[in-house]
Amino acid sequence: MESVDVKKLYEKYQDYKDKEICVNGWVKSVRAGKDFGFIDFTDGTCFKPAQIVFGKIKNFDQISKLNTGSTIICQGTVKLTPQNKQPFEIVANNIEIFCATDSEYPLQKKRHSVEFLREIAYLRPRTNLFQAVFRIRSVAAMAIHEYFQQNGYVYVNTPLITTADCEGSDQMFKLTTLNFNNLPKDEKGNVDMKQDLFGKLAYITGSGQLHGETFALAFKKIYTFGPTFRTENSNTKTHANEFWMIEPEIAFCDLDNLMDVEEEMLKFIVKYVLQKCNDEIEFLNNFVSKGLKDKLNKLLNSNFTRIDHKDVIDILKKANVKWEFEPNYGEDIAKEHEKYITEYFNGPVFIKNWPKDIKAYYMKLNDDNKTVAAVDLEVPGAGELIGGSQREENYDKIVQRCKQMGVDVQTIDWYLNLRKFGSCVHSGFGMGFERLVMYLTGVDNIRDVIPFPRTPQNCLY
Amino acid sequence: MESVDVKKLYEKYQDYKDKEICVNGWVKSVRAGKDFGFIDFTDGTCFKPAQIVFGKIKNFDQISKLNTGSTIICQGTVKLTPQNKQPFEIVANNIEIFCATDSEYPLQKKRHSVEFLREIAYLRPRTNLFQAVFRIRSVAAMAIHEYFQQNGYVYVNTPLITTADCEGSDQMFKLTTLNFNNLPKDEKGNVDMKQDLFGKLAYITGSGQLHGETFALAFKKIYTFGPTFRTENSNTKTHANEFWMIEPEIAFCDLDNLMDVEEEMLKFIVKYVLQKCNDEIEFLNNFVSKGLKDKLNKLLNSNFTRIDHKDVIDILKKANVKWEFEPNYGEDIAKEHEKYITEYFNGPVFIKNWPKDIKAYYMKLNDDNKTVAAVDLEVPGAGELIGGSQREENYDKIVQRCKQMGVDVQTIDWYLNLRKFGSCVHSGFGMGFERLVMYLTGVDNIRDVIPFPRTPQNCLY
Repeated sequence: MESVDVKKLYEKYQDYKDKEICVNGWVKSVRAGKDFGFIDFTDGTCFKPAQIVFGKIKNFDQISKLNTGSTIICQGTVKLTPQNKQPFEIVANNIEIFCATDSEYPLQKKRHSVEFLREIAYLRPRTNLFQAVFRIRSVAAMAIHEYFQQNGYVYVNTPLITTADCEGSDQMFKLTTLNFNNLPKDEKGNVDMKQDLFGKLAYITGSGQLHGETFALAFKKIYTFGPTFRTENSNTKTHANEFWMIEPEIAFCDLDNLMDVEEEMLKFIVKYVLQKCNDEIEFLNNFVSKGLKDKLNKLLNSNFTRIDHKDVIDILKKANVKWEFEPNYGEDIAKEHEKYITEYFNGPVFIKNWPKDIKAYYMKLNDDNKTVAAVDLEVPGAGELIGGSQREENYDKIVQRCKQMGVDVQTIDWYLNLRKFGSCVHSGFGMGFERLVMYLTGVDNIRDVIPFPRTPQNCLY
Repeated sequence: MESVDVKKLYEKYQDYKDKEICVNGWVKSVRAGKDFGFIDFTDGTCFKPAQIVFGKIKNFDQISKLNTGSTIICQGTVKLTPQNKQPFEIVANNIEIFCATDSEYPLQKKRHSVEFLREIAYLRPRTNLFQAVFRIRSVAAMAIHEYFQQNGYVYVNTPLITTADCEGSDQMFKLTTLNFNNLPKDEKGNVDMKQDLFGKLAYITGSGQLHGETFALAFKKIYTFGPTFRTENSNTKTHANEFWMIEPEIAFCDLDNLMDVEEEMLKFIVKYVLQKCNDEIEFLNNFVSKGLKDKLNKLLNSNFTRIDHKDVIDILKKANVKWEFEPNYGEDIAKEHEKYITEYFNGPVFIKNWPKDIKAYYMKLNDDNKTVAAVDLEVPGAGELIGGSQREENYDKIVQRCKQMGVDVQTIDWYLNLRKFGSCVHSGFGMGFERLVMYLTGVDNIRDVIPFPRTPQNCLY
């Protein structure tokens, strides 16, 4: 007898009409009368449950009392039910109970709060909400790989362990094999990192960009997609200490080309997810974020505005709004400004050419000597989704910027050398994967789009 | 004027016949006479170089003297050359030198040793060898994602930071935000980890399996694909402290089903890479590993043998070979045995049902009470490529095994609970991505298939 996934049954139920099959999975709920009952059944392969109908089978009484989360193996006949909500049901001939849960099982048929579910992160993927979120996360990841691979990008696994203090070591976790309670000391009484595995102090990286650039200058178009770490001690809805990033780097690409790539990529991902996760998006649209579907469809048909930072400040200053934070030409913009500007243009906005003093040393200095060729993408309902820039390709200029900003040129001499050894105009961006998943699902807390989130004072499992 | 990638020119040169185009990229070498010259040119988009022909253009003398690695922007006309090795060449109208390298540039036209190239890991992707290796690495990664996504698996990003001491903490890096030279102490004089970011000692994980299983029991089929870390202080050709792993976990899947998946997946990847990386495989076959192409094609047509560990020991004992390590029923097998057994069966071999004492606590205990349902896949020319097992799904049995093997059940109570809450027959495996890339490329040192390898005393860049 063929063992069939529920997903396949939904795709090909006509082929299984009146056939006997086997399904393996879990009980969502049971309703039973005296002579027959219904099992709301899932095997995890698709969002929609299947319905199992059972009559007076030998273990009828036990089946009738099965709790949520119990494991069953069901042999039955597929019957088409065109008049029902579901196009088919499975009429059980035999149901084996593999594992019956009892009242100890934390999940019940009722709706649980996300706060409660965070405490049982190992079980929450069994709920509708997290079935939807984590399947979309998976499909969005695939969309990203497909977009870049179809367009000739090489996927690069940049190192996570690094001794190069690129991002500012105060933001990076230190890594060690030494025993904290018995650290070796050097003659000066300092901890002797020479005795650690790498012979020196090592960090877990906060970005693959610098390493990514070395590959862009060999393969032209590359992307990274991997975990990233920040030590930020901040408990907000949008910060986690471990998250995933996508960081493409592209040779022979200026700021305008970069914005083209960002817009094309984002539309590709949204379209892909809408096509492949229809049931999940419907559910989220109905129960988590009203208007989600419209928001995503609207993005597909948007033209992304491109505007200089200073012109954004002009608009904000002229706006008839009492700001919490006053907009200023030389400064970053606040969340309230991001929101206003996407509403003002009624769609996504690329804000470009930022004041150099608030941006990183590796961004290309514009001819005005005041701004850098950086660009942030602001998306309605998501805020800043992508940050990127043209990279400074001139050796003398980048060294000067490093010195001005107190960046140690010794540890990144290899990175700076790229400006001597076959330098070219090049650009790249970083997109936080969780921010994207939050945007795609309408979920407003980063803890609910990461399988096992890590935040300050919170590292369970 | 259209700016075209060399890859696109190779794919569609007929469309560009006699058209004026622009290419951006790097000089591999220049040969010039008095009145004309040839540039071996690459832009990194494909393995094959393009040929640029230049006559008496205005900067003829400078172009003629360009060093390897110099950046040029060339406008020229595509001419078909059906009688040549390459189907087209670009006849330059104008060549702009964007960045000329000088004698300081470490790469020259000659062949460099891999040892030398490891010291300049940031430049080595520009060489033929590493162009081939790292493109195959990227394409193989995509093959893996395609295989699993096409077959309904959900991609899960399991956490890297963990406080669960699952794999044995002696194999895991410790992670901290504390200052090594000024560690806070508790009242007993021990380091007070409560003051660290997570409020306790945290590690970087060596496996996503345990977390993966929690998702398999929700989505049925899942896979992880991410970086993994081991503190092993061993300098061999096959060990690195940071590497990538693929770890699928599958509910309602026994050991036989698992072997089916492993075989199907491996053949899918090999076929995919052979199709998409023909030029790279040819190069490696000619210059790195003679017979590589035959080896890969042979795998596609192999039937994978399935044999119990004890029967392997029988064969080894009967073999007319003087072993360095004597084969033994209760023990692991050595590299020499792996090699012998794949030669004996003339193809890949699944060795299954291993002595329980040399395997992990989470593997399913067989009815004989002596062996566990574990399986290693031995592949000719690669050794052990995949290790997997059916997981113990019985709560009492796994708890007993934990106790026997000294595993702390407290820190993994959530994992053990999976055996109470909807338990099912399930299996999974782990495949080291670098081992796979070594197999696919014929490269024999793990340091040469990782962009920036991390090994003991070695953490550059």
